Amino acid sequence: MNHLDIPQLLGLLVLILGFAKLFGFLAKQVGQPAVLGELVAGVVLGASALGLVAPKNEVLHFLAELGVLILLFEIGLEIDLGKLLQSGGTSTTVAVAGVVLPFAGGYAVCWSLGLDNLVSIVAGATLTATSVGITARVLADLGRLQDTESQIVLGAAVIDDILGLIILAVVGGLTEGQAITVLGVAKITGIAFGFLAATLVLGGLIVPTVVRWFSHVNLPGTQTTVAIMLAFGLAWLASAAGSAMIIGAFAAGLLLRKTPQAKEMGKGVASLGHFFVPIFFVVVGSAVDVRAFNPVDPANRQTLLVGGLLVVVAVLGKFLAGYTPFWFRGNKTVIGVGMIPRGEVGLIFAQMGLSSGIFDSGLFSAVTLMVMITTFMAPPLLKLLFPPIPLGTEPPNRTYTARG
Amino acid sequence: MNHLDIPQLLGLLVLILGFAKLFGFLAKQVGQPAVLGELVAGVVLGASALGLVAPKNEVLHFLAELGVLILLFEIGLEIDLGKLLQSGGTSTTVAVAGVVLPFAGGYAVCWSLGLDNLVSIVAGATLTATSVGITARVLADLGRLQDTESQIVLGAAVIDDILGLIILAVVGGLTEGQAITVLGVAKITGIAFGFLAATLVLGGLIVPTVVRWFSHVNLPGTQTTVAIMLAFGLAWLASAAGSAMIIGAFAAGLLLRKTPQAKEMGKGVASLGHFFVPIFFVVVGSAVDVRAFNPVDPANRQTLLVGGLLVVVAVLGKFLAGYTPFWFRGNKTVIGVGMIPRGEVGLIFAQMGLSSGIFDSGLFSAVTLMVMITTFMAPPLLKLLFPPIPLGTEPPNRTYTARG
Repeated sequence: MNHLDIPQLLGLLVLILGFAKLFGFLAKQVGQPAVLGELVAGVVLGASALGLVAPKNEVLHFLAELGVLILLFEIGLEIDLGKLLQSGGTSTTVAVAGVVLPFAGGYAVCWSLGLDNLVSIVAGATLTATSVGITARVLADLGRLQDTESQIVLGAAVIDDILGLIILAVVGGLTEGQAITVLGVAKITGIAFGFLAATLVLGGLIVPTVVRWFSHVNLPGTQTTVAIMLAFGLAWLASAAGSAMIIGAFAAGLLLRKTPQAKEMGKGVASLGHFFVPIFFVVVGSAVDVRAFNPVDPANRQTLLVGGLLVVVAVLGKFLAGYTPFWFRGNKTVIGVGMIPRGEVGLIFAQMGLSSGIFDSGLFSAVTLMVMITTFMAPPLLKLLFPPIPLGTEPPNRTYTARG
Repeated sequence: MNHLDIPQLLGLLVLILGFAKLFGFLAKQVGQPAVLGELVAGVVLGASALGLVAPKNEVLHFLAELGVLILLFEIGLEIDLGKLLQSGGTSTTVAVAGVVLPFAGGYAVCWSLGLDNLVSIVAGATLTATSVGITARVLADLGRLQDTESQIVLGAAVIDDILGLIILAVVGGLTEGQAITVLGVAKITGIAFGFLAATLVLGGLIVPTVVRWFSHVNLPGTQTTVAIMLAFGLAWLASAAGSAMIIGAFAAGLLLRKTPQAKEMGKGVASLGHFFVPIFFVVVGSAVDVRAFNPVDPANRQTLLVGGLLVVVAVLGKFLAGYTPFWFRGNKTVIGVGMIPRGEVGLIFAQMGLSSGIFDSGLFSAVTLMVMITTFMAPPLLKLLFPPIPLGTEPPNRTYTARG
């Protein structure tokens, strides 16, 4: 206990939570999602400016890791797989095109700039996942959640997230130095799909019984504890099975969604999320070095060139994906624009690339710039294309959208 | 990030939460408070048996520290100082006698057994604090919360807790090796009282304004975040001022109680408490080595002798304290028995004594034995003296009593 300076860590936590709340509030004031403010708070507290949140602080990284697991659990808890399957082919087409086009574009850009094959793959992967949280929150704020276009965007963003999780597991295996063979990729894909499938099938049989048993435990907080135990337990299991921890946490959410206790669990876990999740975004933001964006320094030109091209590919790829369901007669531009914001998963990829040494800090900063710009541009664009309905539908009862 | 084995820590957290819930449930089934089960879960997971929760795990200790800060914050949030002052002299008399008698008895026992002066002081201090959580929970379970005796016991237990916090700061200073001079003790007492007074006076002026300002921040979880920031911030400040961190967290609760947001904050922080607080009790329990209670081993006889005598002094001291308000015409036996259970603060003292090296593991185990036995014996005794009222009053709306 004497090695950790606990009062200092407490002070740091207060600063992180305070800055996250302050910048989240300011972001909202200028019409941006709160999560963007939390990233900016990280930039301010991190390497670029104050230097208080050091990338090497292990306890903060552990708390951030708990934060991203809780966030993915919350996403899973909000996703109704059955309902998404109904929205059917249109969402899936947009999602698949929205993964393939940015990935191919990002890979092509990086490879043609002379970057390594593995680096190009990981960079391409960072472009794939739409942030379902940011998109849902923006659509809710505009009172447009019940529009057909919104349903398609949300469905596609969710499928996107699942595809992103699979890609994440594949890339995670690659960044750990596994050779890039067809067999290797197939194996990782098999493990990722297999773990998710096995967990959902076996979990679907076991979890309702376990939850029912625990519902007899008349102790306060039991539901929250069960949810956290399943999220962390499956995260540990996923890791032990050679998959990504967040897939386990996500699967835990999917499994618990169908139980009668889901709502109570969501509330309790949301309170934990209010504490842990901003730590994740601040820690991610703290790793961005804005000095890498200084155009006066010739050393940064490569970073800015790559970052700029990634932004173009990221926007174009998702925008074109909105046009792939050619049979759809609604507003395809709205769909494309709704898919643009990247978020959590993109940042997780970037973090993974950085911590494994595949990304240098310049490329990491370029990717984070891409995430921030795509996240910045979507809300005002959507507002332009999709005027708010003043007395529109209620914001959805999604704890996850609250992440903003 | 690579130095901490995050999946392993996740697995450990799942085990800790699961065992805490399981043993808490079993404790309730046999009519005992859940907190006792959590301690037993720690014993099972710790050094005595499975050896999974190692006392040296710094991350677990940090999480446990956050747990005890959150618990003390919750206690503060439940305490209405004004109302307690109304119950007046009777509670105060019981509280002061209930601190002085066990302290003097514990000191005398240890000193006469040839233990060091400092060791005897710290051991005496562990006997002082009644667990307001356990007592309140037991009285609520019996439907007796509105009885005059219960009000006196609760009032005294709360004053006890405040006195315990002051003693804790004094002892904390002593365990850090400050010389035991009258001036030194007076200084620490002054700092403890001064910090609490200054925080409550200044905080009383500033906190309502800050909370009102934050109430305009229309982001989910803001109230919980403000509460946690104040709790951890004042804990950091208390530490910087040379006082105990938990006094800061406790003061934060007292300050926020008067704000209109107190209820919402209590709910959000309770969810955090459901995660963090059991970690504290399990970590404390894990440090108990039951092998030290083996009477066959002659090396343990000193531990058992000290532990047994401490139990006698702990029970007699509080029991007699119940009789000190000689003018009170109600059931004094109930008051005395209601004061017997020790809890959080006693365990914090014990932990402090162990980690500073003042207690050896034998004395630490003896003190923990005293805490466990006094906690064990009170609920059945109270049930005997104070038969439950079947359709009694509602359990109080106290998140803290939920700790059991």
